[in-house]
Amino acid sequence: MFAFGFGIAATNEKGECLDTFFPLPIYEPDVQLAAYLDKAFDDGVNELSTQQLNKIIEPLSGLGNQQADAQAHIVRAFSASTASADTANAKLVAVKLNADLAILSTPEAYLKLHLLSHCLCLPNSMNLDGLFEKLPTVCWTTAGPVDPSEITDRLTSARLKGQHLEVQSVDKFPRMTNYVIPPGVRIADASRVRLGAYLGAGTTVMHAGCVNFNAGALGPNMIEGRISQGVVVGAHSDLGGSSSTMGTLSGGGKIKLSLGENCLVGANAGTGIPLGDRCTIEAGLYITAGTHVELLANDGKASKIIKARELAGQSDLLFIRHSQTGKVICRTNLAAVELNETLHANN
Amino acid sequence: MFAFGFGIAATNEKGECLDTFFPLPIYEPDVQLAAYLDKAFDDGVNELSTQQLNKIIEPLSGLGNQQADAQAHIVRAFSASTASADTANAKLVAVKLNADLAILSTPEAYLKLHLLSHCLCLPNSMNLDGLFEKLPTVCWTTAGPVDPSEITDRLTSARLKGQHLEVQSVDKFPRMTNYVIPPGVRIADASRVRLGAYLGAGTTVMHAGCVNFNAGALGPNMIEGRISQGVVVGAHSDLGGSSSTMGTLSGGGKIKLSLGENCLVGANAGTGIPLGDRCTIEAGLYITAGTHVELLANDGKASKIIKARELAGQSDLLFIRHSQTGKVICRTNLAAVELNETLHANN
Amino acid sequence: MFAFGFGIAATNEKGECLDTFFPLPIYEPDVQLAAYLDKAFDDGVNELSTQQLNKIIEPLSGLGNQQADAQAHIVRAFSASTASADTANAKLVAVKLNADLAILSTPEAYLKLHLLSHCLCLPNSMNLDGLFEKLPTVCWTTAGPVDPSEITDRLTSARLKGQHLEVQSVDKFPRMTNYVIPPGVRIADASRVRLGAYLGAGTTVMHAGCVNFNAGALGPNMIEGRISQGVVVGAHSDLGGSSSTMGTLSGGGKIKLSLGENCLVGANAGTGIPLGDRCTIEAGLYITAGTHVELLANDGKASKIIKARELAGQSDLLFIRHSQTGKVICRTNLAAVELNETLHANN
Repeated sequence: MFAFGFGIAATNEKGECLDTFFPLPIYEPDVQLAAYLDKAFDDGVNELSTQQLNKIIEPLSGLGNQQADAQAHIVRAFSASTASADTANAKLVAVKLNADLAILSTPEAYLKLHLLSHCLCLPNSMNLDGLFEKLPTVCWTTAGPVDPSEITDRLTSARLKGQHLEVQSVDKFPRMTNYVIPPGVRIADASRVRLGAYLGAGTTVMHAGCVNFNAGALGPNMIEGRISQGVVVGAHSDLGGSSSTMGTLSGGGKIKLSLGENCLVGANAGTGIPLGDRCTIEAGLYITAGTHVELLANDGKASKIIKARELAGQSDLLFIRHSQTGKVICRTNLAAVELNETLHANN
Repeated sequence: MFAFGFGIAATNEKGECLDTFFPLPIYEPDVQLAAYLDKAFDDGVNELSTQQLNKIIEPLSGLGNQQADAQAHIVRAFSASTASADTANAKLVAVKLNADLAILSTPEAYLKLHLLSHCLCLPNSMNLDGLFEKLPTVCWTTAGPVDPSEITDRLTSARLKGQHLEVQSVDKFPRMTNYVIPPGVRIADASRVRLGAYLGAGTTVMHAGCVNFNAGALGPNMIEGRISQGVVVGAHSDLGGSSSTMGTLSGGGKIKLSLGENCLVGANAGTGIPLGDRCTIEAGLYITAGTHVELLANDGKASKIIKARELAGQSDLLFIRHSQTGKVICRTNLAAVELNETLHANN
Repeated sequence: MFAFGFGIAATNEKGECLDTFFPLPIYEPDVQLAAYLDKAFDDGVNELSTQQLNKIIEPLSGLGNQQADAQAHIVRAFSASTASADTANAKLVAVKLNADLAILSTPEAYLKLHLLSHCLCLPNSMNLDGLFEKLPTVCWTTAGPVDPSEITDRLTSARLKGQHLEVQSVDKFPRMTNYVIPPGVRIADASRVRLGAYLGAGTTVMHAGCVNFNAGALGPNMIEGRISQGVVVGAHSDLGGSSSTMGTLSGGGKIKLSLGENCLVGANAGTGIPLGDRCTIEAGLYITAGTHVELLANDGKASKIIKARELAGQSDLLFIRHSQTGKVICRTNLAAVELNETLHANN
């Protein structure tokens, strides 16, 4: 079994699903639990009544299995409060995905986004076909998800009752932190990290940082720049303030970008090519695939001029723009290499 | 008649107006409705009691006119809840503007900002004299607008009751989405779009995008950069991440900036001159009015060096900084022109 | 006595402090009040029961001293609502700091951050040793501070009750505006200004602006860029959209950055050196300490090439990158000097 989760789905006034929150989704449930779930639920989305919830608790706890116990704990909480959930335009669901196929419903889309943000699946490792089609555009408010066609009435009636609704976002993707708080992570402004972002332990996303879905930082990292959809940043690599990683959706071509370990993209800099390990782009310099770069040999003598795309994925590079000739230059990043040797010497 | 709206005004403890929300403002009401409104209300702001509200409903619905019916619907909602609105430091108002004159009150200022965000009036098409003077600085909180002089007491008493207030902004302009959600628009982080922004259908504002009041994108557009006050972006033009359009308020001189259709301002790039159609500025390059630009003829041979302001508003330009000489160069954007011909060929 | 404050501390389910809000902190209390506080409280954090609060009111008001009266007013509010505060995982505290020593507790850390944001102490003027260690990482939600270990349960139970929690940030530092609203300041997006920021009257922080703790703008200023930890911006200096001031924590070396008065760092520009008065960096140009700069004499003739760090702290400089040679050039900023003379002439 690919994945499973008990979830709370918010609905609009027609009963259509706006989002789904999975408190504890599972990637590849262990054999014992998978066998039980397979018997109990259909592939895809299963709506659950209180009666059904009550029936599940005993067999789940009876498995005597830690993973199953944790799920039984959630089902008990769901069961205790179905009534109020009904009032609140919510549905309780079990989503079972036998295999990693194209996305067929909103709850399935949310389950996959949860798997990414729980760091259970790496970006670019899952089938996300159908994601955009199955994610409705939602008004994300301080009173929860609201259908855009219902928002003006909600804003009006709140005001007339002396209450207040903040519309935080109008988007297909909600902020991650309303669903998943990965351990060991700090996020200065949570409105800038979408559900489906992957943030490994030790990662800090500062106020100017942004992380899209199906993208992320393996941790530890300092992220003050933008991580576009599909981009993965390796351990100990930092993105300076407002720095840019060019996305495939926005003119970056077909190469999927990634950064290796111990890289630094300086403040207001950017890259349109993937970087290996220990690469640096100086503050304010934007390297695109088509940038002509003078490649300097280790002895400092000019060797040749090439397009940056020919350096894609290589390690130990330092990119600067010479401040007196305006030339974009790439040197072997000797400082980083030496640092690396020091580290090895201390092993 | 220039404009009309029934609104809910939030007030401070002295009864002074902090903002006004108009669920369904009207630009140039149709003749029949205008005739009725003209008789029923004074020019400017009219405070409404429950009694007055009740008196309006019948004649409004009696007009047998779709626009009037929609307004009657709002008046009925207002009438049903005046009591609670009174408790909540709110006033119900009708704002009638016979002509597009200077702004004389806070509700009038809000009505004009609503007209922009409802895409009823284009940026730079309205008289906004008096706007800054008539907009009070407000603490925009998750419990609604609060006067700055009352905020410390509110924060303290909320905490002491085990409640909580988030102060989202301290500004003259609130976020647009608490008042208007334009159809067909996505806004990843709503704190970055001010009321008074104009966002046409098909526009997406990403996390690094910002849109000021009296400014906007005609749609469809991908906006990941900053649209300064007064700037208008044409259809199918994109602003890359953190890109900048220089505002007249912040050193951009007196030329009002605009972008035509099918333009691209790359990530971390910027422009201080208006652009025509099909113009591109490469990622990381900032063109100001005073930038010296080498203008290349179509045959690739250098023609002459001019200041960028001489190219203001022209079409089919591609701006790059040569990565080996540091020269800022402008070429005819052949790729865009060819693309355009392909599109026409497919019509 | 260095500082004092009555505060409301939010706690997690174990009773551990998550934050502390001080409605009216005092820097260097006047002699009379200090004498009383010294007798009444221990150095550091004092938890207060209703009984203790009631005992304090009379002697405080009895001092017949304006500063003491304002504190008595707070104690009365605290005393009236202790019961509900208890329910709400809150503690009432008095924090007394006899001297500016290393930080030993969370309430002390918060008191020092309040002193900065109340503009009572300048950035870099206080002993902040221990700050990071004593600030817990907190989920800052629309229902108040929540311990990260408790957040999933809180999100789940809120959803099941038809309620909703927005997690605004996961960080050691909360947003300033939930604690302090400095007079005469506008902040377009409050999620980007940390508690501990110093914003002098007349400062506007726009949507792309960020201000870290122990950093700020003396006012009046227009801040559309990032003010890193430790950086101070002088009066009448502006940071353009997405501009960068390099922090000591993020590769900027050991020199603490500051900007004097009447400076302009253009949009998407940045500085890695401190600037004196009347300096300008053109839009899109990033000056680091190691940038080679051609220094032009007033007569416009080239003089010599130096590293930017040699210009650190000097006044009347204009930095540009020549748009035809790619050279980074520094000229004496004649326009600014002339402007300055005009201003003096009008005194």
